Amino acid sequence: MALIVHKYGGTSMGSTDRIKNVAQRVAKWHDAGHQIIVVPSAMSGETNRLIGLAKQIMDQPDPRELDMIASTGEQVSVGLLSMALLAIGKQAVSYAGWQVAIKTDSAFTKARIQSIDDVKVKRDLDAGKIVIITGFQGVDEHNNISTLGRGGSDTSAVAIAAAMQASECLIFTDVDGVYTTDPRVVTEARRLKTITFEEMLELASLGSKVLQTRSVEFAGNYRVPTRVLSSLTDPLLPIDIEANSGTLISFEEDTNMEQAVISGIAFNRDEAKITVLGVPDRPGVAYHILGPVADANIEVDMIIQNQSVDGKTDFTFTVSRGEYHNAMAVLNSTKGEIGATSIIGDAKVSKLSVVGVGMRSHVGVASQMFRTLSEEGINIMMISTSEIKISVLIDEKYMELAVRALHKAFDLENA
Amino acid sequence: MALIVHKYGGTSMGSTDRIKNVAQRVAKWHDAGHQIIVVPSAMSGETNRLIGLAKQIMDQPDPRELDMIASTGEQVSVGLLSMALLAIGKQAVSYAGWQVAIKTDSAFTKARIQSIDDVKVKRDLDAGKIVIITGFQGVDEHNNISTLGRGGSDTSAVAIAAAMQASECLIFTDVDGVYTTDPRVVTEARRLKTITFEEMLELASLGSKVLQTRSVEFAGNYRVPTRVLSSLTDPLLPIDIEANSGTLISFEEDTNMEQAVISGIAFNRDEAKITVLGVPDRPGVAYHILGPVADANIEVDMIIQNQSVDGKTDFTFTVSRGEYHNAMAVLNSTKGEIGATSIIGDAKVSKLSVVGVGMRSHVGVASQMFRTLSEEGINIMMISTSEIKISVLIDEKYMELAVRALHKAFDLENA
Repeated sequence: MALIVHKYGGTSMGSTDRIKNVAQRVAKWHDAGHQIIVVPSAMSGETNRLIGLAKQIMDQPDPRELDMIASTGEQVSVGLLSMALLAIGKQAVSYAGWQVAIKTDSAFTKARIQSIDDVKVKRDLDAGKIVIITGFQGVDEHNNISTLGRGGSDTSAVAIAAAMQASECLIFTDVDGVYTTDPRVVTEARRLKTITFEEMLELASLGSKVLQTRSVEFAGNYRVPTRVLSSLTDPLLPIDIEANSGTLISFEEDTNMEQAVISGIAFNRDEAKITVLGVPDRPGVAYHILGPVADANIEVDMIIQNQSVDGKTDFTFTVSRGEYHNAMAVLNSTKGEIGATSIIGDAKVSKLSVVGVGMRSHVGVASQMFRTLSEEGINIMMISTSEIKISVLIDEKYMELAVRALHKAFDLENA
Repeated sequence: MALIVHKYGGTSMGSTDRIKNVAQRVAKWHDAGHQIIVVPSAMSGETNRLIGLAKQIMDQPDPRELDMIASTGEQVSVGLLSMALLAIGKQAVSYAGWQVAIKTDSAFTKARIQSIDDVKVKRDLDAGKIVIITGFQGVDEHNNISTLGRGGSDTSAVAIAAAMQASECLIFTDVDGVYTTDPRVVTEARRLKTITFEEMLELASLGSKVLQTRSVEFAGNYRVPTRVLSSLTDPLLPIDIEANSGTLISFEEDTNMEQAVISGIAFNRDEAKITVLGVPDRPGVAYHILGPVADANIEVDMIIQNQSVDGKTDFTFTVSRGEYHNAMAVLNSTKGEIGATSIIGDAKVSKLSVVGVGMRSHVGVASQMFRTLSEEGINIMMISTSEIKISVLIDEKYMELAVRALHKAFDLENA
């Protein structure tokens, strides 16, 4: 018998029929002798509906009141799922975040979990009940309702698994795991049976939408074995098959038995590049260029400062494509102050990253990546690296070609 | 400066534009120097939508889980109204019932309020904030969310007014007050400026839908001056006009300056009458007849047992028309046990009641009522009386005629 946390996304909870399916699946795991906690999201579309109502009243909704409203979607979900379990003869009880309690800070709409009280939940589990807890939310020290931000139910599930010392957190979603790259771009893309937290963290922050970045951080920090698997299979799929399906995000590097040098290729099409030319190379130049950009709430990703020549340097960075025009406007207005000769940009670029803990022990990953791109005639505009990742910026028109070439070069379809 | 509680129904909260209107009206009262607590209902249709989802999952939804779900409608309302006030420059804060806390018993879906903590609300009011509290709900001793049943927001508003010692509770609704009778039946029906709690209680329990019965009981028990008034007027209607509009439900009999013998005529079309003939007149006969009816969850209203003749008696009672066939089936199945000779019924009857505290000091109300009906050729089937009410059961086809004749006979259009 193990304690297992299940998380179901909004699509899985999208109708009362689908909620009945979720109940079947949960009941199957409970019947197998496990203690089960379920963390469901709001029914698909519900959170957007609620935020839409709020925006009809206030363009910039008050964060505390927005959380009061937005948190109700998950509250409805837990009640419905609890009923669906009761209806098939299971003992079940639902809790809102504040009832557990899940304590957070007071950063409304983007709160962070500080502690989770396990007393009530443990008592219910020991009494044979399936416990259903709202994702996405908690309560601050003054008993104000807080939400964790979009995708926060992933984080809730992992945090609850950590607090309850669950043996595994199963994230049921509408994909059946984490792939070597997007199967829509590379048909040979292969589902990974395991991936390390560090790799998953890089993939999540690089735009792979499978899991919210913060939930991966939580899983890594608290060493919660977390599995991404499909909620679209038959709910009565034999449990020993389901228990080994999807992708396990593991906290032990050696569980990655596949020992590939790299695990996956992530990419982001919607990038834009801006270069500030001929700025005087003196302390504070980066701050003077990027300060006003940050003040305009524009997030900057890759940053490169060239070797200076004759006391002048070039400064290049990327922003998401939707912010390109805003960022150019900000820079043109501060150009004189910065002392730049000119500002140029390119909104048709994409970022491509190879990720893998194998890079630590294998030399030559960068050179193989660069050679492959060179052989395809693809120019690299910017490079940035971390211990387990190499990212390059390229012309967007070569993006798919580059992903396919690298997927083949690193033998990802066969690993 | 006074502390005033406003309550707004689902229609008043039915869209974001209407919620903005409510905010205008509330702000007007706050601008006039009052401290304001607002208790809004869920947006119209929302509670039904939520209960509908629950019923798709369970025919008889689990009460605790149903309250978990149904309570969210009001939570969305308080958040939206708080934002609408913030958007026009007011300080406002919303609370769910558990945050105040409003403590109830654990009778889910029909809980009763036990206590209300005023500390947090008082502090906010003193700081100049408008406080918005969810109607319809509270929390039991184990922190489970409870709801008070349909129309429960009226009760919440009056209970909060009592706990906070508010000087008045204003129930804004889609009618502009309490009338001598239904204006759709008698065009001369007149709005009452005041009505006593006892009269309002009789009218509410007789089926006049203006206020939930329990809220009137609360107002009477805690002596909360409560006013029913329209939310359909211009929200910027001058406050001295609005403050005297509608109908004040007063706890002092002498504030009823109109001194009419009766205050109003209530009626209910959907009645049915059942007579059990020739039952042996011995102790326990009423229980043996009505016990099985109650066990079938059928509510019985008027009850009459005839003088017995030769040790046999007739027993007549009324049920709501929708329960007529069920009740007949129950009785026919227990007929032999009861020892009745036969069971007859009539599903085309209506109940009509005249109500007024003036009855206490005026003799002859009953005889005037009976004479009026007699002059119109209307036969009375059953009679039941209380200290301030006389109810009769008549053929439904005479119902409107009877209401008009009595309205005229008691001079209600001119009082």
